[in-house]
Amino acid sequence: MPQVGIVMGSDSDLDVMGKARDILDEFGIESEMRVISAHREPDIFFAYAKNAENRGLKVIIAGAGMAAHLPGMCAALFPLPVIGVPIWSQSLGGKDALYSILQMPPGIPVATVAINGGKNAGLLAVRMLAMEDASLREKLKEYSRKMCEAVQEKDRKLQEQH
Amino acid sequence: MPQVGIVMGSDSDLDVMGKARDILDEFGIESEMRVISAHREPDIFFAYAKNAENRGLKVIIAGAGMAAHLPGMCAALFPLPVIGVPIWSQSLGGKDALYSILQMPPGIPVATVAINGGKNAGLLAVRMLAMEDASLREKLKEYSRKMCEAVQEKDRKLQEQH
Amino acid sequence: MPQVGIVMGSDSDLDVMGKARDILDEFGIESEMRVISAHREPDIFFAYAKNAENRGLKVIIAGAGMAAHLPGMCAALFPLPVIGVPIWSQSLGGKDALYSILQMPPGIPVATVAINGGKNAGLLAVRMLAMEDASLREKLKEYSRKMCEAVQEKDRKLQEQH
Amino acid sequence: MPQVGIVMGSDSDLDVMGKARDILDEFGIESEMRVISAHREPDIFFAYAKNAENRGLKVIIAGAGMAAHLPGMCAALFPLPVIGVPIWSQSLGGKDALYSILQMPPGIPVATVAINGGKNAGLLAVRMLAMEDASLREKLKEYSRKMCEAVQEKDRKLQEQH
Amino acid sequence: MPQVGIVMGSDSDLDVMGKARDILDEFGIESEMRVISAHREPDIFFAYAKNAENRGLKVIIAGAGMAAHLPGMCAALFPLPVIGVPIWSQSLGGKDALYSILQMPPGIPVATVAINGGKNAGLLAVRMLAMEDASLREKLKEYSRKMCEAVQEKDRKLQEQH
Amino acid sequence: MPQVGIVMGSDSDLDVMGKARDILDEFGIESEMRVISAHREPDIFFAYAKNAENRGLKVIIAGAGMAAHLPGMCAALFPLPVIGVPIWSQSLGGKDALYSILQMPPGIPVATVAINGGKNAGLLAVRMLAMEDASLREKLKEYSRKMCEAVQEKDRKLQEQH
Amino acid sequence: MPQVGIVMGSDSDLDVMGKARDILDEFGIESEMRVISAHREPDIFFAYAKNAENRGLKVIIAGAGMAAHLPGMCAALFPLPVIGVPIWSQSLGGKDALYSILQMPPGIPVATVAINGGKNAGLLAVRMLAMEDASLREKLKEYSRKMCEAVQEKDRKLQEQH
Amino acid sequence: MPQVGIVMGSDSDLDVMGKARDILDEFGIESEMRVISAHREPDIFFAYAKNAENRGLKVIIAGAGMAAHLPGMCAALFPLPVIGVPIWSQSLGGKDALYSILQMPPGIPVATVAINGGKNAGLLAVRMLAMEDASLREKLKEYSRKMCEAVQEKDRKLQEQH
Repeated sequence: MPQVGIVMGSDSDLDVMGKARDILDEFGIESEMRVISAHREPDIFFAYAKNAENRGLKVIIAGAGMAAHLPGMCAALFPLPVIGVPIWSQSLGGKDALYSILQMPPGIPVATVAINGGKNAGLLAVRMLAMEDASLREKLKEYSRKMCEAVQEKDRKLQEQH
Repeated sequence: MPQVGIVMGSDSDLDVMGKARDILDEFGIESEMRVISAHREPDIFFAYAKNAENRGLKVIIAGAGMAAHLPGMCAALFPLPVIGVPIWSQSLGGKDALYSILQMPPGIPVATVAINGGKNAGLLAVRMLAMEDASLREKLKEYSRKMCEAVQEKDRKLQEQH
Repeated sequence: MPQVGIVMGSDSDLDVMGKARDILDEFGIESEMRVISAHREPDIFFAYAKNAENRGLKVIIAGAGMAAHLPGMCAALFPLPVIGVPIWSQSLGGKDALYSILQMPPGIPVATVAINGGKNAGLLAVRMLAMEDASLREKLKEYSRKMCEAVQEKDRKLQEQH
Repeated sequence: MPQVGIVMGSDSDLDVMGKARDILDEFGIESEMRVISAHREPDIFFAYAKNAENRGLKVIIAGAGMAAHLPGMCAALFPLPVIGVPIWSQSLGGKDALYSILQMPPGIPVATVAINGGKNAGLLAVRMLAMEDASLREKLKEYSRKMCEAVQEKDRKLQEQH
Repeated sequence: MPQVGIVMGSDSDLDVMGKARDILDEFGIESEMRVISAHREPDIFFAYAKNAENRGLKVIIAGAGMAAHLPGMCAALFPLPVIGVPIWSQSLGGKDALYSILQMPPGIPVATVAINGGKNAGLLAVRMLAMEDASLREKLKEYSRKMCEAVQEKDRKLQEQH
Repeated sequence: MPQVGIVMGSDSDLDVMGKARDILDEFGIESEMRVISAHREPDIFFAYAKNAENRGLKVIIAGAGMAAHLPGMCAALFPLPVIGVPIWSQSLGGKDALYSILQMPPGIPVATVAINGGKNAGLLAVRMLAMEDASLREKLKEYSRKMCEAVQEKDRKLQEQH
Repeated sequence: MPQVGIVMGSDSDLDVMGKARDILDEFGIESEMRVISAHREPDIFFAYAKNAENRGLKVIIAGAGMAAHLPGMCAALFPLPVIGVPIWSQSLGGKDALYSILQMPPGIPVATVAINGGKNAGLLAVRMLAMEDASLREKLKEYSRKMCEAVQEKDRKLQEQH
Repeated sequence: MPQVGIVMGSDSDLDVMGKARDILDEFGIESEMRVISAHREPDIFFAYAKNAENRGLKVIIAGAGMAAHLPGMCAALFPLPVIGVPIWSQSLGGKDALYSILQMPPGIPVATVAINGGKNAGLLAVRMLAMEDASLREKLKEYSRKMCEAVQEKDRKLQEQH
């Protein structure tokens, strides 16, 4: 049974949102990935967001571009954390999606990550799930150690070249 | 029976949205004004937007600030024109509301007016209703004549002063 | 006799504005498409905008880039709804056109859609015409159903792949 | 023992960050509130962020203005969720703090809320803690019901006035 | 007979545009100041701009805020230089007027000055008139000398205080 | 003897600034085109700008990108009109050059044209020279007629295709 | 004999730039403060910037608003470090000055500090002078200790209040 | 023993930061170039920045993109000048890095250069080192002379072509 729902308004967001799924897979967390549009199928969206808690979802990661209403509407209907991923697009460089996701009114929070930040959305979900899961915390620390080593490796290569 | 629904997410938007109502009153068009939040009462909002057409509304004017989802969600549920009014706020000067209202994905149009443009939202609704109403067209032309005279009057005063 | 006039300042806007025409064709609404410049041929433009109502136009869709004066000047001369489409360009990413179209002074409304939003401009015109046309409303609802099914189809494909 | 650490770089951020504490108090969640600067006392900051997990903190809420490094540096040292609150300031309207908090590189997520969004930061922490706490979920739903009623009450007053 | 026409869309622009007139007065150049709106009285505006050359105007200075079409439409109808003054307003800080005035398409130039730059608009007109007027050039040089002395005087005062 | 000096800080601006020269050639106005940098050769620049009036220049067109000081410094040293052309560059899309050129302090005007607006810079110089030159005015009107015909021709082609 | 020259284009910048002087006084570094305009008195400015090195200045701190050319022109004429302070103004919030100061072309660096960052400009000059001055380094470390203690004191007060 | 440390958060910044090293090499100044991440290896970063002064570094040049904390955190730990280089990236065009580096709070200065301004970062370090090194000053003047000649050469070529 999935713990994290990954939703996006269009399959054109799949490249970015797939990175969230990859991270969750890497940490052994079951997720589901869905194309659901708050604008084009409001009834289906409503049902999905309202049933998500009963189906056992702990976190929803929602990605959207332009007038990105999906994350905020999820947060209006689902009582647990919603992570919003603003998707870049050419006309306004993702600022439209960023503002639509970030500037939620008091009472309905969305946890916003960087423009196209699918990977960090996944990691943020892992951190949330690790709050009550010691083994997940250990995996997060191991993940950090590997990041640290990767930077050191890059530094070593740079020293050798110059 | 009202032809135009004026909705806003918070009564703090009343100053701006009241100007839309004043214009509709001036043109003799019945309207209703409601505080309805897509985020804080999604079920009530859903019911309102879905029933609007059956209740006889021809146009919805929706004003909202920050992550302004109200106009776009209206347009997802109501098949006739939705006019969106971005409300100014200090942190991002209304750009957040503007982008959230304007940048709707293909398929779900919102007719966006200027930041805090409550008056033009009302006039745009009048123009829409005038498409099939010759007497309303005449009133619009009379309204334009008065605007023209008001500018001329200001010009005369300026000439006298200098 | 066309009900909707689609005008653009330059034939370089044709890709975007052609999408408005395609939508109108799809809904069986007669339209005309014109290259008319408020800046380069002000007399021709003036005559076009002033005669539009008498020629039977119900809506004008005007697209323009940079200092996009065409939609606003149409709204100054034509008493019925004008829909403005800001065209993207490299230097300011379409923000110049957006502000020039959106920020109309009180009294002269323009219904602004997203940057390069030709398709939604067309759909907004259809919604306006559907206010007094029950069969057009039915077509709009059918159009919405198809959009909904298209998203569901994309969702099914995503589920099969993962 | 506090579950949530609320940190800010300067006591000038207290008005905004105090709203996070008020929410946590309202939900019966113990928190601590600290003025800690990553720039002006890096050793003290480092020690705080590194010990936070061992001291039992589950979430850190960090508020900062201008070149707001505090949330991101917390996320580099603390393995559980960090919520960042960009503080408004006159020169760049909070965009500087927003970008500094939001645009974290892959690997180090920060959950960003709206500019000056202290209240939503608190609610987001509650939602995270509610993932494994059924009674907290019930309180969240009760909170949502009250928000819904408050909007309805405002709507009733508006109807009475007009 | 005035050589410079100073036009503005609204008498709310008078504070800024009056500075252009003051400069022209100071240099002994006759000007006229008019409130004329391209949007609210397009026919009157058209007639003004078309007759300006025959009436002897050499330069038009046009100030406007928001979707500031007045300068660009002047430049479409009047063959000699048009100077545009973007007027500041709260919602977008004058950027809307700036882009509407500045980003004219190839073929129709407007000489744009700073936001609220009424004084420099006046001085730019003087410089244009000085191209073929040696006595005006001398006055411009005298004006520059006085500016230079004013800065030196401020510098002396600063030295005395510290 | 050239009447217009076209200066640019770098030969990478040649594509844009060459359009100004082409327009001046088309109107039979002699110009000179120079690469001169206020930053990299301040003495040479100073001498050029100070001697420009005595050498018979009536207008200087200055193009520059990034921190574009060239037009403003020309206007500080040359008493006649200076036209500034902001050059687009990737990092800030030409906004840096635009603000550096446009926002001149009171007393030192620069006539700013659109980003990369080399052609309009040339036409603005022609309009200035036409203030006291009836034959140049006639050429400008002829130029406008041709622009008008070119738009009509594009319109005819569009009608034929659709 | 002063080691640091503090220059500003207008005495309206004195509030911000006086903070640079206060810091230099606090560290016992002699400075001079001058109102000098690159635009309004280019010859005086040129002489000042060219003679600065011979007069013994090691660093120039230059503050300017709007099209802020002063820092960049200093850097073109003075071979040692120039620190630029963008001054806030209402129309563009200091972004105009920021871009004009920051975006210098390759070859002519300016060390830019925050908008209205007079204090940090002073401290940056101290750091530069401390590169070869051990006692100044000690003072800088003492200064850092005091900043650290001031934050701790604020933290203590916050703990007592709550 | 290196006098200048060039650090970057990722080897993807090497193209920009390598230009700083090239300049330092050209002036005969020893430097070291390191990949060090404040976010991914905070302990290693802390040790590097704290030991930098004792190891003899006089200046640190730090480049970073997105939420660029590296320069500011260097300035919090290293008492001598830190030069920050904002790295361009697609989503926000380098504005995120710019604001994160520039808008440091009072007390912790960073000398910011243009977006992707690696070359000017190197030159700024040279100017700082030249404050107490007469031979380096001579080299800087020679460098300026060559820049001046290069512009003159480009100007000559332009004259020959036209």
